[in-house]
Amino acid sequence: MRFFEDYAPGSVEELGSVSVSEADILEFARRYDPQDFHADPGKAAAGPFGGVIASGWHTASLMMKLLAARYLDPASSLGSPGIDELRWPSPVRPGDSLTVRVSILEARRSRTKPDRGLVKSHIEVRNQTGDTVMTVSAMNLIRCRP
Amino acid sequence: MRFFEDYAPGSVEELGSVSVSEADILEFARRYDPQDFHADPGKAAAGPFGGVIASGWHTASLMMKLLAARYLDPASSLGSPGIDELRWPSPVRPGDSLTVRVSILEARRSRTKPDRGLVKSHIEVRNQTGDTVMTVSAMNLIRCRP
Repeated sequence: MRFFEDYAPGSVEELGSVSVSEADILEFARRYDPQDFHADPGKAAAGPFGGVIASGWHTASLMMKLLAARYLDPASSLGSPGIDELRWPSPVRPGDSLTVRVSILEARRSRTKPDRGLVKSHIEVRNQTGDTVMTVSAMNLIRCRP
Repeated sequence: MRFFEDYAPGSVEELGSVSVSEADILEFARRYDPQDFHADPGKAAAGPFGGVIASGWHTASLMMKLLAARYLDPASSLGSPGIDELRWPSPVRPGDSLTVRVSILEARRSRTKPDRGLVKSHIEVRNQTGDTVMTVSAMNLIRCRP
């Protein structure tokens, strides 16, 4: 069980990897982000990225899968107020394997609700060749140890 | 057809609405964000939000659905370099109907690639009772009129 006190500023955690297939990319895109370069392989081939790329929201959701599994704990996670900056510097393509690294920047206990604190993290998502495909400056509310 | 020149700073656009059911929330959460308050109605009822709420990435994806349909054009959309700030001030609950409003803040033609420009927008997502559930400061690369 992990609580607010266990998120140590300065620490860096590798959360493992997640793969994404063309079928995954198309399914997500057709439901939520049906732009041609996400959802239509034929048009995508002639488009600005020379092939299908994942919706940035799909990449974010795949990152979340690893955060939920290996960074947050159901005993203490209280959700997130938001994101300070998110960048998609390189595209995610079918067959990519994405690794997620989290650096804990700051952990500040709440003054008004002393049973919790705010953890700020910098998250980097890279593909199998080392290109950074997403960076996120995230915030999470985490319950303190009872 | 809409091009860079058609995104006018100062204009405000209503993109319509999208509904989200409990089944939608659970399906997205179980795949990408299986925290109890998103994915398990029983545990969620006893949890910090008193019931199931949508993953913030699900809310973002639902917003994207309306952006793709009514704000971006396949003739000119060239993707996004990222997001400057994203906030989730109130939770999204089963049965909510979300409306999306976009305010165009800035449209700047690229110096290095004069066939395109960067459009900065402020996006507000509200539920059926007027609560703001998400705000996003977004950037989009848009092709200029040929």
